[in-house]
Amino acid sequence: MTAIRYELKHQDATTAARLGVVHTPHGSFDTPAFMPVGTQATVKGMFPDMVAAIGAQIILGNTYHLMLRPGSDLVSRMGGLHHWMRWNKPILTDSGGFQVFSLSDTARIDDDGVTFKSHLDGSTVVLTPRRSMEVQNQLGADIIMAFDDCPPAPSGGAGDDDDSTSLTRHAIDPRDYPRRVREACERSLRWLGLCKTHHQRPGEQGLFGIVQGGTDLELRSWCAKRAVDHDLPGYAIGGVAVGEGFGEIQKVVRHTAPLLPADRPRYLMGVGYERDILMAVQAGVDMFDCVLPTRNARNANAFTPTGQIRLRNAQFAEDCTPIDPGCDCPACGGGFSRSYLRHLFQAQEMMGPILVTAHNLRHFQRYLLDIRRAIAQNDWSLIAQRWPAALSGG
Amino acid sequence: MTAIRYELKHQDATTAARLGVVHTPHGSFDTPAFMPVGTQATVKGMFPDMVAAIGAQIILGNTYHLMLRPGSDLVSRMGGLHHWMRWNKPILTDSGGFQVFSLSDTARIDDDGVTFKSHLDGSTVVLTPRRSMEVQNQLGADIIMAFDDCPPAPSGGAGDDDDSTSLTRHAIDPRDYPRRVREACERSLRWLGLCKTHHQRPGEQGLFGIVQGGTDLELRSWCAKRAVDHDLPGYAIGGVAVGEGFGEIQKVVRHTAPLLPADRPRYLMGVGYERDILMAVQAGVDMFDCVLPTRNARNANAFTPTGQIRLRNAQFAEDCTPIDPGCDCPACGGGFSRSYLRHLFQAQEMMGPILVTAHNLRHFQRYLLDIRRAIAQNDWSLIAQRWPAALSGG
Repeated sequence: MTAIRYELKHQDATTAARLGVVHTPHGSFDTPAFMPVGTQATVKGMFPDMVAAIGAQIILGNTYHLMLRPGSDLVSRMGGLHHWMRWNKPILTDSGGFQVFSLSDTARIDDDGVTFKSHLDGSTVVLTPRRSMEVQNQLGADIIMAFDDCPPAPSGGAGDDDDSTSLTRHAIDPRDYPRRVREACERSLRWLGLCKTHHQRPGEQGLFGIVQGGTDLELRSWCAKRAVDHDLPGYAIGGVAVGEGFGEIQKVVRHTAPLLPADRPRYLMGVGYERDILMAVQAGVDMFDCVLPTRNARNANAFTPTGQIRLRNAQFAEDCTPIDPGCDCPACGGGFSRSYLRHLFQAQEMMGPILVTAHNLRHFQRYLLDIRRAIAQNDWSLIAQRWPAALSGG
Repeated sequence: MTAIRYELKHQDATTAARLGVVHTPHGSFDTPAFMPVGTQATVKGMFPDMVAAIGAQIILGNTYHLMLRPGSDLVSRMGGLHHWMRWNKPILTDSGGFQVFSLSDTARIDDDGVTFKSHLDGSTVVLTPRRSMEVQNQLGADIIMAFDDCPPAPSGGAGDDDDSTSLTRHAIDPRDYPRRVREACERSLRWLGLCKTHHQRPGEQGLFGIVQGGTDLELRSWCAKRAVDHDLPGYAIGGVAVGEGFGEIQKVVRHTAPLLPADRPRYLMGVGYERDILMAVQAGVDMFDCVLPTRNARNANAFTPTGQIRLRNAQFAEDCTPIDPGCDCPACGGGFSRSYLRHLFQAQEMMGPILVTAHNLRHFQRYLLDIRRAIAQNDWSLIAQRWPAALSGG
């Protein structure tokens, strides 16, 4: 018995894109799916009802943050993450590994795990494959992720949580990159075995394996094969969009996605912009998460089909139109004008981030709705017509 | 033709309390009424739909803030405050006078008006009775307030806007108080005449006069009589709860309310706690506004029938009950526990202030609902049973 089951609904005629449904103990979600990030057991500024009304069917929680505050013991005693945060639909938690490196200056990795100082109180914390499983078992998400070693790209990249403390990851010395990526790959596979062993609730929570390998395609192939050997309910492509450009991302995704079993969901972690998502969907990827819609919203950046607009700009002071006339979100559908939204940001009012978060999340959900429609109809012209930024790179 | 009409529904048998309805160009509201404060054209963190769902039928906007940012010209060009902020129900704006003194260190008053430096950019601004009318005419609220001179109590008191920049008002030297209050009274009456003259939209906006006089009951009587001579659609008791204690407030309210015409709504500005409201209702007051529910919510203070609780306290870490089991607000009715709310505040998540604001606003609306019910039934035992904090002072 497995907690997660992938159901293929339709295979696109011209690309590797596929329409599906993932079944979990807390209900199903349509794929390709975009998961809003709820770092600290809340999608920032959003009532759970609104997240659902906006069309999200699954959200992501961050193990690193929740293990430090309030602690997974507490969440477990309070009935688990779903009950505690009042979200009775599917949840996925990451393993905490990636964020240790995003958020702690002092993280030290070895073959057992990662030792770091909490960014909250400076206390020393050890995170291992076993501990990550314990924490994720206590949180109780429907999909939990293997604890892996995810090195940044040589140039460094942004953190993947949705919290203001998140800064840029530490870059790797380019000369050290090949060795470091190979090491990460081997370590991640060894840890994957440990995660599988220590996962205590496989009937209620599906463990996804993660394929590392950086931009080395041979390494990706090797890693994918070993991960797939574990016969897990789903697989993720990790170590992508950690600082490299679109071309590199595309190369890795197109290479790796077909190596993952067609009867399991495929998840591209931490991605991304509309263009990245479209490319990955057409390579056969089913699941995405990214902080872009929520984090950018709090900086007054609103997504539109033709690209982002900065609502603080003076040009919007007397603009009585909504962010996107074609949008049905609580901001646009509610009649809130760019003029009013700009005022809210100028006045540092909470409703600015709230309304634009609602809009940006709906923007991504509407985009994924159209992607699913395009697959169902074997017709990608819908995307080209409605989502020009997805083709141009926004 | 007047914009505002008071309809008496029922006079309480044992007190001066009265049940009524105030009709405005944007609909009616039941009285006694509590008006949430929407300082900067938004009730902080609340969708207008939620403010309405919580039971508020009229909200308050602050002229001082809106004239400085974004400016009433802009709001007027954007269709007026109602349209711009998406609140199609009654709005009341204050005159700006009180807040000049709350928020500007450099305010200088003379017989023409007040000259001050903007707390936003330091520019010099002049506010006069005529200018206050112009600004309020542009904002377009249903009820607008006369520009008055409201001196603080000898000990000083809290500001009445709902903004974090609001600090304590400057106290008056007690020896100078009697002279200063008399001066404020005379000046406010002179200015009331000017406001009436310069009010350009009496058919769409009702101008309320304000009775000053501090704690001097003779002065209150004199001021009330002169104000009432202007035959305005409503009257307010100003200069109360600016730093004095409950006993003094009670003395002034019980003295002044009966001096105001029974066929017009009576508004006690900036009040207050449950006990203050109950006392004033029983003295014949119909309208209240206060930042307590919204401002305290952002500091993690939640109102309950037995008094406020501080949700940051460690005792709530694993408290799985709602703030108030008898409450039907989005927080309590939505099943959000004190444990979860505490986490949101500890983690500095927006949903903490949002959920507790919703709760506190609903707390006050439920309290006013019960007060209206008590009047309708000539039976105050309901309040004693359900709202112990209203009797004890909470």
